[in-house]
Amino acid sequence: LWSEEALMITPEEQAQSKKALKKQQKEAEKQAKKAEKQAKMDFAKDRYGVSAMVQSQERLGRTLIRVQDLTPEKANQLVWVRARMHTIRAKGKQCFLVLRQQQFNVQALVAVGDRASKQMVKFAANITKESIVDVEAVVQTVEQKIETCTQHDVELHVERIFVISQADARLPLQLEDAVRPDVGVEEEGRATVNQDTRLDNRVIDLRTTTSQAIFRLQSGVCQLFRDTLLQKGFVEIQTPKIISAASEGGANVFTVSYFKTSAYLAQSPQLYKQMCICADFDKVFCIGPVFRAEDSNTHRHLTEFVGLDIEMAFNYHYHEVLDSITDTMVEIFKGLMDRFQTEIQTVCKQYHSEPFKFLEPTLRLEYQEGVAMLRAAGVEMGDEEDLSTPNEKLLGRLVKEKYDTDFYVLDKYPLEVRPFYTMPDPHNPKYSNSYDMFMRGEEILSGAQRVHDAQLLTERASHHGIDLEKIKAYIDSFRYGAPPHAGGGIGLERVTMLYLGLHNIRQTSMFPRDPKRLTP
Amino acid sequence: LWSEEALMITPEEQAQSKKALKKQQKEAEKQAKKAEKQAKMDFAKDRYGVSAMVQSQERLGRTLIRVQDLTPEKANQLVWVRARMHTIRAKGKQCFLVLRQQQFNVQALVAVGDRASKQMVKFAANITKESIVDVEAVVQTVEQKIETCTQHDVELHVERIFVISQADARLPLQLEDAVRPDVGVEEEGRATVNQDTRLDNRVIDLRTTTSQAIFRLQSGVCQLFRDTLLQKGFVEIQTPKIISAASEGGANVFTVSYFKTSAYLAQSPQLYKQMCICADFDKVFCIGPVFRAEDSNTHRHLTEFVGLDIEMAFNYHYHEVLDSITDTMVEIFKGLMDRFQTEIQTVCKQYHSEPFKFLEPTLRLEYQEGVAMLRAAGVEMGDEEDLSTPNEKLLGRLVKEKYDTDFYVLDKYPLEVRPFYTMPDPHNPKYSNSYDMFMRGEEILSGAQRVHDAQLLTERASHHGIDLEKIKAYIDSFRYGAPPHAGGGIGLERVTMLYLGLHNIRQTSMFPRDPKRLTP
Repeated sequence: LWSEEALMITPEEQAQSKKALKKQQKEAEKQAKKAEKQAKMDFAKDRYGVSAMVQSQERLGRTLIRVQDLTPEKANQLVWVRARMHTIRAKGKQCFLVLRQQQFNVQALVAVGDRASKQMVKFAANITKESIVDVEAVVQTVEQKIETCTQHDVELHVERIFVISQADARLPLQLEDAVRPDVGVEEEGRATVNQDTRLDNRVIDLRTTTSQAIFRLQSGVCQLFRDTLLQKGFVEIQTPKIISAASEGGANVFTVSYFKTSAYLAQSPQLYKQMCICADFDKVFCIGPVFRAEDSNTHRHLTEFVGLDIEMAFNYHYHEVLDSITDTMVEIFKGLMDRFQTEIQTVCKQYHSEPFKFLEPTLRLEYQEGVAMLRAAGVEMGDEEDLSTPNEKLLGRLVKEKYDTDFYVLDKYPLEVRPFYTMPDPHNPKYSNSYDMFMRGEEILSGAQRVHDAQLLTERASHHGIDLEKIKAYIDSFRYGAPPHAGGGIGLERVTMLYLGLHNIRQTSMFPRDPKRLTP
Repeated sequence: LWSEEALMITPEEQAQSKKALKKQQKEAEKQAKKAEKQAKMDFAKDRYGVSAMVQSQERLGRTLIRVQDLTPEKANQLVWVRARMHTIRAKGKQCFLVLRQQQFNVQALVAVGDRASKQMVKFAANITKESIVDVEAVVQTVEQKIETCTQHDVELHVERIFVISQADARLPLQLEDAVRPDVGVEEEGRATVNQDTRLDNRVIDLRTTTSQAIFRLQSGVCQLFRDTLLQKGFVEIQTPKIISAASEGGANVFTVSYFKTSAYLAQSPQLYKQMCICADFDKVFCIGPVFRAEDSNTHRHLTEFVGLDIEMAFNYHYHEVLDSITDTMVEIFKGLMDRFQTEIQTVCKQYHSEPFKFLEPTLRLEYQEGVAMLRAAGVEMGDEEDLSTPNEKLLGRLVKEKYDTDFYVLDKYPLEVRPFYTMPDPHNPKYSNSYDMFMRGEEILSGAQRVHDAQLLTERASHHGIDLEKIKAYIDSFRYGAPPHAGGGIGLERVTMLYLGLHNIRQTSMFPRDPKRLTP
């Protein structure tokens, strides 16, 4: 496997034209022959090279040590490590490498001596950044801490080095630029990477410590959400994304060609969650994509995002459900704090933000109280007027000042600004049993008690001018006995963004979709 | 809340025309007046009725006991229970009810006496099936076990009964018909429910003990899949469903209108999983919808189903990944056996099947061995021919006979029958590092080592006649250092169906989508 013939393998090449390809191949053959010739005069020639593509030729028993496990306890041991070439610095007869594995990195040294030849050091010095290499090395403790690496206390003295996968010499972006804090960079005259370059080259951008931390934490949000709900007796459901009718009026919905007819992409799993409640599942949740054909080009809108959805039957009052949802959010916040502190700190190094604050029990304000706070701050708005985005943010700041929390619930929205299936407030017909939740002044959840009575639902839909024929199946779901229920939908990317105090939702969507971006 | 005025509320009605509605309303008013008049002469008049719609009027502290908790330990206690009217049988001065809550039910008795009037018994007898009721009752142990209920040892002596949500009198299907075993029914001349009726009225069909069991177990499959992988250090990812190019050739793909352009629905998250591997996430999984525009009207094809997807970097051999996947499957099988035995038994009562068998370690056969077994059984087929569905099933039976397992892996498929991104076998170019997994003789997973080298990938794509320009972004993902990796995608509905020994995938999809069904 590790034979010299490996050098016959040409490096990866951009097949832009057949002519270029041929030329490259000739060049590569020439290089390979040259290397072969040199190797003959090289005592270390079996100790380095470009390895044959790993094609599962054999199942080697060799243990690879993880970079994060390279600590002083391993001192003087000979280990194999597979990692990326993060940086390479040649210096006379030696070559310093930084080897990276996800968020961890370690310094490695290739130096001319009885284990490495001049040719081997030269080979190492010429490995392209981001290539994946296997090194065999002795772990050595260092006298002075290596501040630039996560593994401060050791370095690797390389005895063998093989390229497993070779990166193109020209990278579309540099990882060190991609993790540089935006603040103060201009004064220093150092490069950062703009968002489109990042997203166009997401495979590289996702390798940064910041991206690794963001998406590992996001995986944690899903896990905490589910674990909390499963513990509360919820059942996970799967709801269809291709639907026959745009139930919520038809605006902002993507159309799909479906054999000889047309269909739509679901804007939310809500109708299906509710059908599950009518089907006695009692408490359900789902995690899945939701689609919005809105031409909104803002920092917080995506055309496809991940919804964490909850629906739950209750006995007497929708606050039973509201409490379950706020409990769940609090469990998520606590779990992130406990289990993802490293990730939070990592993101904070590049994008500074204050730690996320929340209260127990969760602060719940009525809509009218919110309006009063805004008016006291000089905002003019009507009782039944919806919150504009600036007012939403302003209210978040006012709430933070007064209550010292980044998370709160606004309850009892005006009926007119909510969807037709929202249950009216029994005590004041201008309001409704509905709520939004906010993190750092931005909405992350919208929910309500739903109308579970077919007759009232029909009236409300008519009032909203909705074609009853189109929502017949939905209304019919409530004709065979339906328990009172409430629920809500949380935007995963928003939760991640706002928890970490980031400012653009594209940072918390691996492959974001917006009106102008469909790739990669 | 529980006042007599509740009777003024009309029952739910099908608003087919305004005229019919008016007529119904008049009738209802008449009925209500009559009831009111009768109530005046009724000593128990405050003890029953149709309750006002639960609109969160107040947050009652009342505890509702769950049906499954109604056991002899609660004997002589006065309890409140909310449940569905499962069956009603009036008999002179008494009325026997069966109250159902999900998979549990209990017998209840309303009898004329000092707590219930003749009118109250009559009221109870006329409550429509599937209505949701609140009853206050004394728990009484019974001398003879009630075999027809899950709560054998007690019955409820009802002292109050209120309708919380009234079902239409005419149900589109009867629950007792919907759980009747198919076998032997024709001889008995008893009704069953055909599949389209079930699916058209899914809200009711999902209430059966069988459906409740199927989908609770399915929730368990997802949970076990994730828990196993998270424990192995996998990261959960979210991949986009709207994609700009139909990467796998453009056949069988749904088209979406995307603002002023067109897009497609992802046939699998594979390319994105692979990009995550190239982005150093090392081991990833996702659970989400996948879309196939195939006009296949079979027992096991859906146009939208849920994929449990895995992708994992490995060191030397793709069997490292294969072992992780089979481990995960085995953990799922064991977990279902341990935690969902009740559900398995419940489904078995309606749809009989043999317990699911598997081996540890999982049986792995090479494709050539499978072909040899088929040939020995009289099948004529070429070495590099793909398995037809009948041959797949036959091989499943042969494997079961020989090895006594319902789960096995077929490894090393012919290269020609696999997608372009499949890694060729390093020892025999006719074969590939790819595998399928089977449960009870049907495929549930397809996977492979992927080509992680841009040059080889280009060659393979060209060989398959794929337009390189369209997959440029995909190929480019491998130009900046890519670890060897493998993975696979599991169909959730198939796993559930085959584990339970069911025969139609529509039974394990809550709201199935096929070429002919887009509703509900």
